[in-house]
Amino acid sequence: MDRLREALNQTLTELLPKDQGALYEAAHYSLEGGKRLRPLLTLAVLETYSVPIEKGLYPAAALEMIHTYSLIHDDLPCMDDDDIRRGKPTLHKAYHESSAVLTGDFLLTFAFETLANAPDLSDSEKNALITTLAQHAGAEGMIGGQLLDLEGTIEDWEEMYGKKTGALFCAALEFGAILARVAVEPFQAIGKALGVAFQLIDDLLDEDDTVKIYGTQKVEEKASQLLEKAVAIMDTLPNGAPRLQSLADAMIHRTV
Amino acid sequence: MDRLREALNQTLTELLPKDQGALYEAAHYSLEGGKRLRPLLTLAVLETYSVPIEKGLYPAAALEMIHTYSLIHDDLPCMDDDDIRRGKPTLHKAYHESSAVLTGDFLLTFAFETLANAPDLSDSEKNALITTLAQHAGAEGMIGGQLLDLEGTIEDWEEMYGKKTGALFCAALEFGAILARVAVEPFQAIGKALGVAFQLIDDLLDEDDTVKIYGTQKVEEKASQLLEKAVAIMDTLPNGAPRLQSLADAMIHRTV
Repeated sequence: MDRLREALNQTLTELLPKDQGALYEAAHYSLEGGKRLRPLLTLAVLETYSVPIEKGLYPAAALEMIHTYSLIHDDLPCMDDDDIRRGKPTLHKAYHESSAVLTGDFLLTFAFETLANAPDLSDSEKNALITTLAQHAGAEGMIGGQLLDLEGTIEDWEEMYGKKTGALFCAALEFGAILARVAVEPFQAIGKALGVAFQLIDDLLDEDDTVKIYGTQKVEEKASQLLEKAVAIMDTLPNGAPRLQSLADAMIHRTV
Repeated sequence: MDRLREALNQTLTELLPKDQGALYEAAHYSLEGGKRLRPLLTLAVLETYSVPIEKGLYPAAALEMIHTYSLIHDDLPCMDDDDIRRGKPTLHKAYHESSAVLTGDFLLTFAFETLANAPDLSDSEKNALITTLAQHAGAEGMIGGQLLDLEGTIEDWEEMYGKKTGALFCAALEFGAILARVAVEPFQAIGKALGVAFQLIDDLLDEDDTVKIYGTQKVEEKASQLLEKAVAIMDTLPNGAPRLQSLADAMIHRTV
């Protein structure tokens, strides 16, 4: 896993050299310290089908840019108003609120540019990735989920987490399927289950609202059910997709 | 021109029906009332080369989405802190600051989805449009220009306006050239000159800093020079590109 993470981080550094002005420097600051789960999901699917991971590095980097922009904007004072992210001050605390808005916009824009410029991909593959990412990151996906979260009607939490977190997990796994030229459906199902489970585990670690309302036991049960569902689909993939399984395992047993 | 503007507005309404939830409603609110200059530039180039305007409607709509997202984010309290836009309260005043952040993100994301889904275009044309838009809207273009503007070093105003406004004018004209399959270079030159001239005329109407520092006469002279440069290139296009000329003319003689 370390080899994949290293290759990915190198790609991010090449695409976003930090000495290329204020926006790059700020983007670099926010990208540092992430667990890289979403891009690693893409690369894990490529490994499952013996596709060279080089084919997935730009698409995986684009996913991490989208994830990072969403963190930067969600942390803003008018949104979740968070001070700490990835173990250090949030971008609007370390720099300025306007830098955080613009750096988020930059990473969002640059993610699509990165997909359009990805080496070794056909125009048709690039377009499939761009459509997939835009749909999962947009009003029917991540942005829609963030809006539901702000509106704060916790009853919709499964829909909300499915969009807010599940959608980008889906995009990551579908990216792998598109690049490996296999059917996307099993990966959509894994992505949604894994994404919601991941968010519930997050809630357990943070003792979030969901836990206060439904209780630890019920949230743990729901997370386990979803993980079992995801793992059952992984079992049907070539060799049981060991890399995907170990990523899912790392997500369950994380402590931060 | 009314026919082109109407076709464009219909496309925007089809792509973003306002009854599809809060993000669409807010996007609709912010899109209303714009002059549609950038998308009209694209369609004017298509007319110049007798390309059916239908081919340009989705790409033109995507440009208007990018322009509108940039207005929404630039108007935020932490940016230019503007209360009025397109003749009514800015989005963060009419709704909420978090809605303005998310709606901007949505329009930015949806612009790329719109390009990836544009009918009657090859995958190669879509990719050329996506790359062109991302470059002109990103750190080397519009977002970079907005950062220079916030940093407020007025000495760099030609570079700043070239990026902040010129870049999206360039994208609009290059879109036309890509769809008409002609060389983009003359359109890049027109776009940059026209964009900076447009911004200077804006400054004259608003009695902005540039005017206070350099004086009305000098700013008027510079705007005229740039417009002459743009018109001289238009004169070399088929039939003198009358639709482009009349758009440029409308920009000079506007009063708002």
